[in-house]
Amino acid sequence: MDDVVVDIREVGPRDGLQGEEPVTVENRVRLINALLDAGVRHIEACSFVSPKAVPAMAGAAEVMAAVDRRAGVTFTALVPNAKGASMAMESGVDELTVTISASPAYNEKNVRMTIDESVAQVGEICQLAGAASVPVDAVVSCAFGSPYEGEISPDTVASLADRLLDAGVKSLTYADTTGVATPKRVKDLLDVTGARIGLHLHDTRGTALVNAYAALQAGVRRFDTSVGGLGGSPFAADAAGNLATEDLVHLLDDLGEPSGVSLDGVLAASALVTELVGHPVPSKVAAVGPRTRRAG
Amino acid sequence: MDDVVVDIREVGPRDGLQGEEPVTVENRVRLINALLDAGVRHIEACSFVSPKAVPAMAGAAEVMAAVDRRAGVTFTALVPNAKGASMAMESGVDELTVTISASPAYNEKNVRMTIDESVAQVGEICQLAGAASVPVDAVVSCAFGSPYEGEISPDTVASLADRLLDAGVKSLTYADTTGVATPKRVKDLLDVTGARIGLHLHDTRGTALVNAYAALQAGVRRFDTSVGGLGGSPFAADAAGNLATEDLVHLLDDLGEPSGVSLDGVLAASALVTELVGHPVPSKVAAVGPRTRRAG
Repeated sequence: MDDVVVDIREVGPRDGLQGEEPVTVENRVRLINALLDAGVRHIEACSFVSPKAVPAMAGAAEVMAAVDRRAGVTFTALVPNAKGASMAMESGVDELTVTISASPAYNEKNVRMTIDESVAQVGEICQLAGAASVPVDAVVSCAFGSPYEGEISPDTVASLADRLLDAGVKSLTYADTTGVATPKRVKDLLDVTGARIGLHLHDTRGTALVNAYAALQAGVRRFDTSVGGLGGSPFAADAAGNLATEDLVHLLDDLGEPSGVSLDGVLAASALVTELVGHPVPSKVAAVGPRTRRAG
Repeated sequence: MDDVVVDIREVGPRDGLQGEEPVTVENRVRLINALLDAGVRHIEACSFVSPKAVPAMAGAAEVMAAVDRRAGVTFTALVPNAKGASMAMESGVDELTVTISASPAYNEKNVRMTIDESVAQVGEICQLAGAASVPVDAVVSCAFGSPYEGEISPDTVASLADRLLDAGVKSLTYADTTGVATPKRVKDLLDVTGARIGLHLHDTRGTALVNAYAALQAGVRRFDTSVGGLGGSPFAADAAGNLATEDLVHLLDDLGEPSGVSLDGVLAASALVTELVGHPVPSKVAAVGPRTRRAG
């Protein structure tokens, strides 16, 4: 592996918390600041969605107004539409994320739109964002398969990616929404798309870390991770959280791949988020401590 | 990767169950037969240890007397000493496993012997076994590090391995007893020892599968796995089970690496062992089903 810095985009304050009982704005800001203290330099802080639809994400503008704005940190917000994009940019975010699914059935279920309609909406968001020079990253869900259609071919994903780039997105992140990726599927997709993309992995089948490792070997240097591995529901058998930030940092540190994120710092943020959500987080590194831990 | 068959040694009936509330001989035999039905051809069925020390392993000879002895299946038993080896061979096992630690402190804590004493004992066992043409596999615990000494160097492990081969063992299995291995540490050890060894991985830090993947890439073709990922205590924060058989088969199937073990068959055995131990097993593949599962 070469010496490129790995870009960890921390999505815990958004993807990690969105399915939890609402955490106050003040505590979400504490979490974000703890992650910044850990060296995180790219963070999805909130989403500008309807508080009725996602109560845990209410107060996004308040979060943005209260966080420490440190030099060199990119604040990202998820936006569902042009209205959300405007609100996000008013709040001062540096990057927008939009989601669209490579699975037509999943897209319909998730946002009640066809792929064409979603691409058109992404285009509207990119127009607004482009006028303000704010980059848009498209997170393509079900990029490795869907619970509805089964396999989604790399060509299907690549052709959607081309449409999204045409619509104005600046970068692409491929999401394994339901945990069906494998090292082989990761490589197959990267063979078609190239490695200059981000990966957003879920641990539904315990494969998030091995898929990240295969992606690192194939040259990927951008990952979405969630502190503690939050995301999905840790207590439902068929849902699971994101790749845990501490699990990826634990691996990267051992590989000598610099991410700028301190494992001890992430573990402190993970302890905080455990307290805020009121239940254990999925990460085993968080539960037992790093490999360097000695018998007491 | 080349086309060599992967040898999965199923250790669930021994390593998986030894820390659980005792399961009856009859039900342990049911589990073993379910695993054989799944295509398992190498299985650690029991251990000939003191039933006082490990109540869950009582009745080892009865287990061996009752299991289906199918052609092409290697039955293994763990033995702690010459007496256990004699009993195991009388019961008709095809292979013995012995454990010894690469960590002097762990060895002392675990079996109250120095490494020298343990090597001498392995020699006694090998003499008995050699006379009966029964091969002995040495499982070297803490081969990637120890909670007492920290890192254990590959050279230390290799020099212990040489002593064990001199003492008469036919094969070596390196165990990540406390989940401190990483892909890099796996490769570092294999660089010194070569890949013609077995790996016995634990998932204490969620790294068992990524370590197995790194080992596969480096040419390892023998793994100890436990149905459901049992082993250690799934409810204690600082202990965790073995690499789950279904997790490895799930990966191997996708990689096109033949193991002869059917994923559906292992999942059936995993459902059985879940019933027998009375709590969920650690494997997420067991919990949510294989990646090919569709939305209901």
